[in-house]
Amino acid sequence: MTARQPTVEDVARRAGVSRQTVSNVLNTPEIVRAPTRARVEEAIAELGYAPSMAARRLRTRRSETIGIRLDPYAGGISGIVLDRFVHALTDQATPRGLRLLVYAADDADDEIARIRRLREGGEIDRVVLTGTFEGDPREAWLAEHGVPFVAFGRPWGEPGTGAQMGDPARPWVDVDGAAGTRAATFHALGEGDRVAFLGWPAGSGTGDDRERGWREALGGEGLRWSTLDSVAEARATVERELARERVDAVVCASDALALGAHLAASHAGRPELLVVGFDNTPVAEALGIASVEQRPERVAEAVLDLLVADASAGDVGAGPWHRLIEPVLVVREREYFSPQRP
Amino acid sequence: MTARQPTVEDVARRAGVSRQTVSNVLNTPEIVRAPTRARVEEAIAELGYAPSMAARRLRTRRSETIGIRLDPYAGGISGIVLDRFVHALTDQATPRGLRLLVYAADDADDEIARIRRLREGGEIDRVVLTGTFEGDPREAWLAEHGVPFVAFGRPWGEPGTGAQMGDPARPWVDVDGAAGTRAATFHALGEGDRVAFLGWPAGSGTGDDRERGWREALGGEGLRWSTLDSVAEARATVERELARERVDAVVCASDALALGAHLAASHAGRPELLVVGFDNTPVAEALGIASVEQRPERVAEAVLDLLVADASAGDVGAGPWHRLIEPVLVVREREYFSPQRP
Repeated sequence: MTARQPTVEDVARRAGVSRQTVSNVLNTPEIVRAPTRARVEEAIAELGYAPSMAARRLRTRRSETIGIRLDPYAGGISGIVLDRFVHALTDQATPRGLRLLVYAADDADDEIARIRRLREGGEIDRVVLTGTFEGDPREAWLAEHGVPFVAFGRPWGEPGTGAQMGDPARPWVDVDGAAGTRAATFHALGEGDRVAFLGWPAGSGTGDDRERGWREALGGEGLRWSTLDSVAEARATVERELARERVDAVVCASDALALGAHLAASHAGRPELLVVGFDNTPVAEALGIASVEQRPERVAEAVLDLLVADASAGDVGAGPWHRLIEPVLVVREREYFSPQRP
Repeated sequence: MTARQPTVEDVARRAGVSRQTVSNVLNTPEIVRAPTRARVEEAIAELGYAPSMAARRLRTRRSETIGIRLDPYAGGISGIVLDRFVHALTDQATPRGLRLLVYAADDADDEIARIRRLREGGEIDRVVLTGTFEGDPREAWLAEHGVPFVAFGRPWGEPGTGAQMGDPARPWVDVDGAAGTRAATFHALGEGDRVAFLGWPAGSGTGDDRERGWREALGGEGLRWSTLDSVAEARATVERELARERVDAVVCASDALALGAHLAASHAGRPELLVVGFDNTPVAEALGIASVEQRPERVAEAVLDLLVADASAGDVGAGPWHRLIEPVLVVREREYFSPQRP
């Protein structure tokens, strides 16, 4: 490059406007009157001015870019909820002037290393965490290094350590799973009082939370079955249980479990048995299975609200720093199947 | 900031290594011996050296970041293929030292405006296009402005204008849909010679291509049904056709169509009728429906290969500049359903 790069000042002089107006045309063109905008854009074209985000970034040390990990596709039915969340985040970040940079990572430590590099390079300046778990080192690291972040998923922790759930240093947004299974169970009680719960083995925060909603709606204990999140295992479990118990309906912790339960009921000659899933995936939609919809679009909105607040100094402490999104139950006209083997 | 920012040279001096070694620790730490790496990292920490990607970017005008549009979730069964592609791209871009920035856009023109701004700001330096269509202005714009890009999806164009398919200025990767339905039809011919095709209305490049594979495998015309990509419409169409035609198997242009065909066959008392879908979605997997797997991970690999080649001056012309990925047929042990209405 031989000649000096044109600056904002050059553009302003050429167009006969203030520097602020040039800045507005570049950053918020919708607030500039059309003739003025046209004049500034003409000056930009004539001078060959290129606004450099990289230069601005160096000056402000703010990239306004959110980093988020995107895991390899693992197959299965439920992964779609996280994909819907990323889609919604992308869609809603753009009009807020935020960008989304996605990265891969092998595990939590690898993700920390990745975040550290992206941040040091000014590539990202805030983070959305997914797949949080107890004792997650990512949250501690981000808090310690002053990186604004919001987690999709609350820290479950040990019973009695609930204090951290309101910790403004660890903001999170989550779906109120218990509210979802509560609604599902109230709906299922219309079929009779023996509403079973098909969940995962105890110990996962999310699974235990969904089970709690069912128990609260029942007002006590009931038929509680547990299996891995597999259609085949769910089907085998429910076939076995239906042979020995009277069951009026089954509330499930996922759509994969619900599909297994639905196939088992059909196979046992009870295609009309009400089964309620969780996640409202295309599978539930295609087969007419009722399911709890997590509303990932609402989760994305809340995450961005907290992330923007967090990134502006002074806002910290203005809380609340966690949001529970209320899911909705989607009830469908049921299709009845009975599987036959030829 | 009062003091001068420490440089790579300061770090090298402090650690007693060469500048190259410092650079290696920053960029390819895996090739540096552990004790040396520890010494350099210690020096970095002591001096508070922050390698600035933004500074490097200003110098090289290369962000090594790929822009890709991510559309809002539209529901349905088949969107998962594009999500798998984005996951795979993220996963494979990271080890190649490339980053992925996702953005939203309302339409092709809006996407061009978005790309222009991100590029002017040094945010992205290459693009992956999805959802290309005939006369797509995005490809023309990118080619004209010298932005390296690769499209997932070939330009179908008018018959006889196939020349542009080999145009090195418009590189693309696509899945050989015709090869997929050809394999599906050969498999289906094991059930009898009356293999029907259930596709979309004529005129979509992708749909016509999938139909072609079926016709080629049949060696001529056959039963050809068409409907929108809806489970309910597919089901109604196939129920109607089964009532008046002898049909040995149905090859479908999507899993949504296959699910509809499967439900129709079951309802018509033919739960054993072989149906083959396309996309190998979780729905097909869960219900045991055979389906053509597009291998989006292979598509991502090919896209990155072309994108990297394209971005390095001198490689242009070394072609081939388009890649057709061969899909595979996934055959499953079938589940037989017959829907019952109480």
